[in-house]
Amino acid sequence: MGQNSELQSRAQGIGFLVKMSGLQSLLCLFWLGSVQAGKLLVIPADGSHWIGMKPLVEELGRRGNQVVVVIPEESLSMGPSEHTTTLTFPVPHTKTQTQELVLAYMDENLNTDPSVDLGGLLISFITVETFKTFTVRNAESLLFNKELMKTLKDWDFDAILTDPLESLGAIVGEFLNISSIYIQVNHPCGAHFLASQCPSPVSYIPHRYTQYSNRMGFFRRTVNVVKALLQPLTCRRLFSHADEIASRFLQRETSMLEIMSRAVLWFVRFDFAFEFPRPVMPNMVMIGGFSVPKPKPLPQDLEEFVNGSGEHGFIVFTLGSMVSELPEVKAKEFFDAFRQIPQRVLWRYTGVVPKDAPKNVKLMKWLPQNDLLAHPKAKAFITHGGTHGLYEGICNGVPMVMIPLFGDQGDNVQRMVARGVAETLNIYDITSEKLLVALRKVIHDKSYKEKMMKLSAIHRDRPIEPLDLAVFWTEFVMRHKGADHLRPAAHDLNWVQYHSLDVIGFLLLILVTVMFVTFKSCMFCFRRCLRKSQKKKNE
Amino acid sequence: MGQNSELQSRAQGIGFLVKMSGLQSLLCLFWLGSVQAGKLLVIPADGSHWIGMKPLVEELGRRGNQVVVVIPEESLSMGPSEHTTTLTFPVPHTKTQTQELVLAYMDENLNTDPSVDLGGLLISFITVETFKTFTVRNAESLLFNKELMKTLKDWDFDAILTDPLESLGAIVGEFLNISSIYIQVNHPCGAHFLASQCPSPVSYIPHRYTQYSNRMGFFRRTVNVVKALLQPLTCRRLFSHADEIASRFLQRETSMLEIMSRAVLWFVRFDFAFEFPRPVMPNMVMIGGFSVPKPKPLPQDLEEFVNGSGEHGFIVFTLGSMVSELPEVKAKEFFDAFRQIPQRVLWRYTGVVPKDAPKNVKLMKWLPQNDLLAHPKAKAFITHGGTHGLYEGICNGVPMVMIPLFGDQGDNVQRMVARGVAETLNIYDITSEKLLVALRKVIHDKSYKEKMMKLSAIHRDRPIEPLDLAVFWTEFVMRHKGADHLRPAAHDLNWVQYHSLDVIGFLLLILVTVMFVTFKSCMFCFRRCLRKSQKKKNE
Repeated sequence: MGQNSELQSRAQGIGFLVKMSGLQSLLCLFWLGSVQAGKLLVIPADGSHWIGMKPLVEELGRRGNQVVVVIPEESLSMGPSEHTTTLTFPVPHTKTQTQELVLAYMDENLNTDPSVDLGGLLISFITVETFKTFTVRNAESLLFNKELMKTLKDWDFDAILTDPLESLGAIVGEFLNISSIYIQVNHPCGAHFLASQCPSPVSYIPHRYTQYSNRMGFFRRTVNVVKALLQPLTCRRLFSHADEIASRFLQRETSMLEIMSRAVLWFVRFDFAFEFPRPVMPNMVMIGGFSVPKPKPLPQDLEEFVNGSGEHGFIVFTLGSMVSELPEVKAKEFFDAFRQIPQRVLWRYTGVVPKDAPKNVKLMKWLPQNDLLAHPKAKAFITHGGTHGLYEGICNGVPMVMIPLFGDQGDNVQRMVARGVAETLNIYDITSEKLLVALRKVIHDKSYKEKMMKLSAIHRDRPIEPLDLAVFWTEFVMRHKGADHLRPAAHDLNWVQYHSLDVIGFLLLILVTVMFVTFKSCMFCFRRCLRKSQKKKNE
Repeated sequence: MGQNSELQSRAQGIGFLVKMSGLQSLLCLFWLGSVQAGKLLVIPADGSHWIGMKPLVEELGRRGNQVVVVIPEESLSMGPSEHTTTLTFPVPHTKTQTQELVLAYMDENLNTDPSVDLGGLLISFITVETFKTFTVRNAESLLFNKELMKTLKDWDFDAILTDPLESLGAIVGEFLNISSIYIQVNHPCGAHFLASQCPSPVSYIPHRYTQYSNRMGFFRRTVNVVKALLQPLTCRRLFSHADEIASRFLQRETSMLEIMSRAVLWFVRFDFAFEFPRPVMPNMVMIGGFSVPKPKPLPQDLEEFVNGSGEHGFIVFTLGSMVSELPEVKAKEFFDAFRQIPQRVLWRYTGVVPKDAPKNVKLMKWLPQNDLLAHPKAKAFITHGGTHGLYEGICNGVPMVMIPLFGDQGDNVQRMVARGVAETLNIYDITSEKLLVALRKVIHDKSYKEKMMKLSAIHRDRPIEPLDLAVFWTEFVMRHKGADHLRPAAHDLNWVQYHSLDVIGFLLLILVTVMFVTFKSCMFCFRRCLRKSQKKKNE
């Protein structure tokens, strides 16, 4: 209990709010007695990112590590987690303000016609602007609170686990000079591949927001090359605000990409049942699907509802943790479509309900998505293509109709469509007819179900559970104070050296010199011969 | 027993020699009853390669898979293994002839002055010539024996596990049209990275036989670029004989690189405690150190000998499974050095023994290398730098003096030297003084032992044992009839497309056109302006 009290007194004296359960106090005792346990600082990102990270953080705490999670007082979804100590810090904005920001972002996406959006250029522009605001809004509140930062330093953590979507955690890791482990799904400018020096051949690795597959024709490859050329600029624009805060706080000229290049490990939330096969680096640990829980039985009322669907089965429809409403005119298209199908529908929806809403549709504020998908009568899954739902769909082998809303969802969707396990629709121009066609296709064309079952089998057949893998590597970094043996020497080279441009220049110089000397020698010989023959003629 | 008899009758009728123990017959029964078990064809490569592969093959058999190992009647080290069925086929050469080939190869390496060998160009030339002879000598004997090949086809294997050092297995896999799993340590022309489309940035990934580390100055990077440019030519020369046999046998124009590019999985026998960190592909499974067995207690006489070394401890000295002799003049240098140290020495040596051989040296025909290295009194390991010994050294945390003889050993050694856990000497100009300096350094300078213990801790701290990983992935391929989801789309592109040269050309064309039109427009405007002003002047 000593550590617990110390922790509380240290934190409360300076305005931290400490939330610690009785179980945590017990764990503190365990921490003190255990040599193996490490001290881990966790700074998560908001929204679905926290939901995805939470199982790992809780498991690390459950295993006896001293896990301290630092979150803002006001956030969309972040809150206390089991087996950990949660510290909150004050921020000048409210949860409602953040929600408004997200809704405004989604609205812009809803109103962007994807057919005129060449290679996702417009979408990525909107994303960049939102990203810049969203990812630094908590940073200044923590970084420039000297006492809070001193407390974190005094803790002498072994490592930090953070989501680099929000720049805060990465900057704190750099300041504390401890091993940084990043957990990442998709970064808008592909910063995780740039910063880790992971080669991404543009000829078959589609750039973010292009929504291309890994098999591209000449035109698409051209767009992809152009986007790759612009990538450093995109990253610079994306991080401009964060770069400025980091430089100001660390009191030296730096950039987020430079800070991120020092990451010890990258937990990338994909596996190759989902992601297109591509090169990876030794310090990348693939943990796709690690947050999918074991399915539980449904509550009585839901079990009755889905069983009542008979042979036709039912459809699960959610648009992610951040979106439970739709503009009335869009929602109408969905109600109209559902009226015409024999399947029952469970829809997470809190928007306006029309008077003539069909009876086969059950609207809920929240639904047990994974448990429903695991039900044998689940026939299709209408989803926005967020990674959580996507892996739950794959895990349970349910074909999908995918309606991407924002961020990396369009790219995620493309990966499922390329595997023949999903159909995709644009929210911008969705109609009940289009929805009906897509739903009937994935339900009645057996190839979708068959391919999804194969994908599911491949995804679930793994030598070690991804959650265990993430736990192992986090503890590895704490045990060995880093993982230097996984850091490529590429980080010691500048851009010119990395691409061997100096060597190529030198070799070209030699080549040109040799050619020049050869040419001059030949000309010299030729002229001498000519002179001789002229002399002879003259004689 | 039915399957056993069928197997024997099928094989014996056509000249196969079937070796099957009682245990194997029992296993056959298990195979018949087990749905999960797969049918695996194994075609290994000779020498230390087979020794490295054997534990995996035996474990796959022990787990109930039907494992059929096909080997030539005469070989250096290949023979029956437990829990498997071994089939042998006649070859026109004897074991002695093969041994002579290896010795001649080693002699050439012994007499090549590495100081004049720019970036290993000479060594690689010698290697290429030996490689060409060695790797195809068994191929024709099996491939053009129609009945033997028909028998293998009739077996309807789920997959083939083969070492692509010898081309035979890869060609058989292609002919049988089954999933091919390659087990590979280092290919002389880096074919495993070429064929798997794995990016290898030349700026920090040293080419084979350069003996460079991953941190290269300008000169070394230049040599490395030149070797990379020559790589396709080296590969073509290396495979010229095998390409011809493959094309003749498969009755279509093909190449070994093309055949190898269809590998479903690559088991690469390294991990990053040994190999320099570099990009890898999703279908590469790192199983470095998988063949290191658990150490057993030493026999009574050896235990007494090593314990008699007192506080000074002892040195283990072997030059690999293929080399137990040395030219007398070289051996003398070793005896002279050992005479001057207080440590006892266990040396695997069958060459000429001088009359005044020092008493602290115990010469043996064979020694339990791993068990000796695991002994707490082991102070140093003199080794040629073959991967087996190397991983045994790492596993047991014993600093090394490394004397590379041929093949990839020079590169392996460089990796250990770069980590500060080994000293290296050239066999070409070795003297007792040089040996003494190196031995005293690794024994008395504590940094070698400390760094080696750290490396050992990192190597042994893994989420899953590499042997289990190899077993899992072999069975995965048999269960799912391949692993298409790990195959990058790069294989569908030609060289120009892969490097985006067509796109770059197109973009340059646009750029040049735009510049040309801009220039012409400017010139046009300029001329008009000039004409007007001249007119005005004239007026």
